[in-house]
Amino acid sequence: MGQALAAAFLAKGHPTTVWNRSAGKAEKLVGNGAVLAESAKGAVEASPLVVVCVSDYDAVHALLDPIGSSLEGRTLVNLTTASSTQARDAAVWADRLGIAYLEGAILGVPQDIGTDTATMLYAGSGTAFEKHQATLEALGDAATVYLGEDHGLAALYDMSVLTIMWGVLNSFLHGAALLGTAGVKATTFADMAVTAINVSADYVTGYSQQIDAREFPPTDATMNVHLGGMQHLLEESEALGVNTDLPKFFLKMVHRAVADGDAENSYASMVKQFRRK
Amino acid sequence: MGQALAAAFLAKGHPTTVWNRSAGKAEKLVGNGAVLAESAKGAVEASPLVVVCVSDYDAVHALLDPIGSSLEGRTLVNLTTASSTQARDAAVWADRLGIAYLEGAILGVPQDIGTDTATMLYAGSGTAFEKHQATLEALGDAATVYLGEDHGLAALYDMSVLTIMWGVLNSFLHGAALLGTAGVKATTFADMAVTAINVSADYVTGYSQQIDAREFPPTDATMNVHLGGMQHLLEESEALGVNTDLPKFFLKMVHRAVADGDAENSYASMVKQFRRK
Repeated sequence: MGQALAAAFLAKGHPTTVWNRSAGKAEKLVGNGAVLAESAKGAVEASPLVVVCVSDYDAVHALLDPIGSSLEGRTLVNLTTASSTQARDAAVWADRLGIAYLEGAILGVPQDIGTDTATMLYAGSGTAFEKHQATLEALGDAATVYLGEDHGLAALYDMSVLTIMWGVLNSFLHGAALLGTAGVKATTFADMAVTAINVSADYVTGYSQQIDAREFPPTDATMNVHLGGMQHLLEESEALGVNTDLPKFFLKMVHRAVADGDAENSYASMVKQFRRK
Repeated sequence: MGQALAAAFLAKGHPTTVWNRSAGKAEKLVGNGAVLAESAKGAVEASPLVVVCVSDYDAVHALLDPIGSSLEGRTLVNLTTASSTQARDAAVWADRLGIAYLEGAILGVPQDIGTDTATMLYAGSGTAFEKHQATLEALGDAATVYLGEDHGLAALYDMSVLTIMWGVLNSFLHGAALLGTAGVKATTFADMAVTAINVSADYVTGYSQQIDAREFPPTDATMNVHLGGMQHLLEESEALGVNTDLPKFFLKMVHRAVADGDAENSYASMVKQFRRK
């Protein structure tokens, strides 16, 4: 990922100094005009904007703790995957050292970087984001999004987008498995699956408004109606020998919602169950 | 639902005879031109096409078993929610009595019937579907879909579409709960959530092709990469006190996939886990 990030800066003509524990990884970048620093300290001191992307937060601390004073007065953008707590703790550390700090999250794989298929999320210092936005746009052509001053937001949006991705894909695969028992090909199901996903997405706007208003009128179906359908899904999955964990999870949550008094409310009222352990 | 179905036939000018255990429910329909039969037998014998929609399969049998001979030579369309097994058993019963039989499923709520937002699924006798297709289109203006000769397909597609709907909505609500801990409104998250749902839908076509080809090259991310992300999601959910069942389910399935040798394969290889209990 580090190579992809540096390559994207170089491709847009930004002077770029690189450093990696394995210097060999920088060869191609140097061929494309990057300056290879002899140490992390040298790389940090070369530019007003410092971008870090390593394997985890332990690696971040091992790398930056010894050279904190070199970062003073610069902007640090940390693209290492983090939890919201790690991000907020790092923001306290950066503030103490006089570092303008942005936490970032990358929605995409290395080959997306610098193209219009990467979405780059940033959270933290709004002043630092404004100052370097034009440079950071080299990484995500179409979508470079500033989320707010809370440094934890990049991690939270990242996780929220990922849980949606896994939720969509798992339920499609569960459907494909159900239909597979009748010899229906996944490619035959695909069109209707995509339609079902898109129709479900249409509920998000209305349900969001209900969640924020804390009122859950059953404009489509009540939780009791969903409960009946979920029981059918569990029975069908059991009878056909396909996975039952997913329908059991659906039922566990809807039973909790009914017990909480939401039987005649809309599915959006289920947010209360997701807010609890 | 029965009232909505009859109203849709009447709205398109089809002569319609109705019957319900509670005759009072038919009043408005009679006002709109429906003929009210004095018995289920009378209603069945009034038309070449008989549509049944009751609460469950026990009610279907209680209603139709005593009047099976009246159905001989007619087409019966059963829109009662069924399992694929119930549907296939009913098809054997209908065949023995000389009834042309279609199982149907309604993707939508009563107010969708007769509009372009209902999708009507039919499975079973292709000859019967062709004969009555024009009439049945009164129920679902835009989408009246014939799935194939296997009477179980309507139930299976219905369940597959519903599991997708719950999968999408649950993961959106989980994301909204995560972001809610940082004070982010659901309506603020909604746009990015819809984008995430749409981006996930883009994977369905390619993954379907992999499933049918039984080859799972990691064109985007490997299962091991997903596993790492899911662990972050679980840790974040635990730390913030929101629901952990969903990330635990994700992890259970991905651990099974890795144990099955799919660590370096694409997420589509997870279909194998959904095919098993």
